[in-house]
Amino acid sequence: MSDGLRGAASDLRAEADSLDAKDELAAKRKEFALDDTVYLDGNSLGALPAHVPARLAEVMTHEWGKLRIRSWDESGWWTAPERIGDRIAPLVGAAPGQIVVGDSTSVNVFKALVAAVRMARGGNPADPGHSDEGRDEIVVDATTFPTDGYIAQSAARLTGCRLIPVAPADVPGVVGARTAAVLLNHADYRTGRLHDLPGLTATIKAAGALAVWDLCHTAGALPVGLDAHGVDLAVGCTYKYLNGGPGSPAYIYVREGLQDRFDSPLPGWNSHAEPFGMRPEFEAADGALRGRVGTPDILSMLALEAALDVWDGVRVDTVRAKSLALTDFFLRCVETYVPEGRVESLTPAAHAERGSQVALRCDGAGEVMKRLVEQGVVGDFRAPDVLRFGFTPLYVSFADAERAARVLARTLA
Amino acid sequence: MSDGLRGAASDLRAEADSLDAKDELAAKRKEFALDDTVYLDGNSLGALPAHVPARLAEVMTHEWGKLRIRSWDESGWWTAPERIGDRIAPLVGAAPGQIVVGDSTSVNVFKALVAAVRMARGGNPADPGHSDEGRDEIVVDATTFPTDGYIAQSAARLTGCRLIPVAPADVPGVVGARTAAVLLNHADYRTGRLHDLPGLTATIKAAGALAVWDLCHTAGALPVGLDAHGVDLAVGCTYKYLNGGPGSPAYIYVREGLQDRFDSPLPGWNSHAEPFGMRPEFEAADGALRGRVGTPDILSMLALEAALDVWDGVRVDTVRAKSLALTDFFLRCVETYVPEGRVESLTPAAHAERGSQVALRCDGAGEVMKRLVEQGVVGDFRAPDVLRFGFTPLYVSFADAERAARVLARTLA
Repeated sequence: MSDGLRGAASDLRAEADSLDAKDELAAKRKEFALDDTVYLDGNSLGALPAHVPARLAEVMTHEWGKLRIRSWDESGWWTAPERIGDRIAPLVGAAPGQIVVGDSTSVNVFKALVAAVRMARGGNPADPGHSDEGRDEIVVDATTFPTDGYIAQSAARLTGCRLIPVAPADVPGVVGARTAAVLLNHADYRTGRLHDLPGLTATIKAAGALAVWDLCHTAGALPVGLDAHGVDLAVGCTYKYLNGGPGSPAYIYVREGLQDRFDSPLPGWNSHAEPFGMRPEFEAADGALRGRVGTPDILSMLALEAALDVWDGVRVDTVRAKSLALTDFFLRCVETYVPEGRVESLTPAAHAERGSQVALRCDGAGEVMKRLVEQGVVGDFRAPDVLRFGFTPLYVSFADAERAARVLARTLA
Repeated sequence: MSDGLRGAASDLRAEADSLDAKDELAAKRKEFALDDTVYLDGNSLGALPAHVPARLAEVMTHEWGKLRIRSWDESGWWTAPERIGDRIAPLVGAAPGQIVVGDSTSVNVFKALVAAVRMARGGNPADPGHSDEGRDEIVVDATTFPTDGYIAQSAARLTGCRLIPVAPADVPGVVGARTAAVLLNHADYRTGRLHDLPGLTATIKAAGALAVWDLCHTAGALPVGLDAHGVDLAVGCTYKYLNGGPGSPAYIYVREGLQDRFDSPLPGWNSHAEPFGMRPEFEAADGALRGRVGTPDILSMLALEAALDVWDGVRVDTVRAKSLALTDFFLRCVETYVPEGRVESLTPAAHAERGSQVALRCDGAGEVMKRLVEQGVVGDFRAPDVLRFGFTPLYVSFADAERAARVLARTLA
């Protein structure tokens, strides 16, 4: 390291310390099980909130072990999907009663898209015969996390639609009278680019189609504003910025005004108006419950519920402000430390277009990430040449960001 | 209690003690967290295997808490669905490589039925255009647990089929050239009646249709023989006789000979041939992996994996022999203790037609079950008038059966 660079590093470390000292979320870090690893992979798997194991031990030994079957009622297991949905609601700008938790993101994409097509065609669960087959196109983000595209293809095939993959920016040019639904990611999983949810939602709705958003990479990282922007349907996972644990259940949001027309392709007994009536004919429950399907996965679900406690007293605006400050600072550190031309940021510089991760294009990215992990800096690699660094404002510090950039520079030197 | 009845009770208690002393599964009871409750609801939620909380604590604190994202590879999280499927396989008479665990039973019924219709029509994932639309009927058990019927209705609607609900005994009379698939329960959830899986499977296949079995009420209670009887597809939950925990993930079996034609309606990234290739086009993985969808629910899944340890060294034939002995003995105790006419068994007397539960029709069954639970005898109530008592041979004793009948008689006196 040259003398000049050494000086710059000293300055950046001092700046990191100063930023951490002023960080109003700094105390949150203590609520997570963390060590001296710089963990920048919370955009893939959030860190463990420290109190979750004790809560889950109680669920296992007391609720399952002692009360057993009685817990479905006495321990509130049965109502967990909607209760936890209401805990997630304020984090994504939704009033209560519009989100249920359960199943994987993929399965929720399927429910949302098939239901969206049915609603766009004017379908009504009370009158399944009626439909406007004129709307026969599903538009999907061509840069989407692949599972959304695969499921969209299946939803299109089963509803007799054509699938139209386009870049999010090109959506306004393709939506029209034939569009039934549009499935978009709020943030690109690879580049970290944030898409224009308010503008695109308005465009899609103006065309008479339904807007379905995948919030996997934004919920818990920045304000989403589902209600405010009139989003029709949304889905998301809970194991990234919501720290629910590996493969924790996903959720589905159905805007209140659409709920009585939400006609699920997965009408399991948990979405029945009278689940214990054991009636042979399906009759959909009222409200967001229509998004439920089968018996909820209680251990994973209650681990998630406990994990959401870390949000008590946290404002999403504060999280967003820190997220932008962290990614700005990390990019400056990278620019200062890493020799020119070795990495290129794929993440937009404009705040309005940036999620909560930084993606760097880098030759030999797979091998570079392995060496970073060996040195205690954990991000991840996405083929063919991307280093991803996720910034979770609840537990990542400015010192972490500086150290990550420094270790990256050393690795590339 | 009359003197005569008192003498009979004394005899039955002595017989229970003698049967328990000879029970080669008796030692298994110690592997579960049980108290002095007579727990006869393992056909709804299996008891807690005592070692599960310690294993899950390790998963949370070490695998999630310390290794974090590395556990997908280093702790074997990614391969859990097929690894645990292979643990379940011998319990249902399946060779390895045909079962994956994940999602709810309802979601698996959906995958199985839609894929079955596609296969019955001669469809091939490599050539989705080809199909024999002549097969346009799905036959479903009219006495099924309701969710199977609701999902079958949805699968029929999405594949352009007509749904034909019939009693399992009437299936031979309705299957024919128009039948695409038949969905049946191996045991009736309400009456405990065991259906003729080998005979019905042969009949269905002879008609050129696919046989789909729901094993929720038999897996872990009696031999199923999936491979031996040529079953095409099967699904089941893991929280009843497999003791996986509340809402633990379900499984799907796809017979080896059908796997290359299994065309899932839920093709998530976990069923892709190259999941981390992040390719926009779906290409199905080989084998049972095609039954996977999204990110597996690791906490619930690894609790299930640990729970399956109780099967080490247990033969399903032994379990079946004890199950029949338990239900025989319980029925004799009920007949002896309960005043004539107060209850009527809905469960067939013939062993070949009996699952592992006893269902008694009883006036005021809901209130009766409440009073039984208050007295430490836990079964459950199914509307309108059924008392259900499930017998899990791994932890229910003959003394339990005798006591349950005695408390029932006292309650009805």
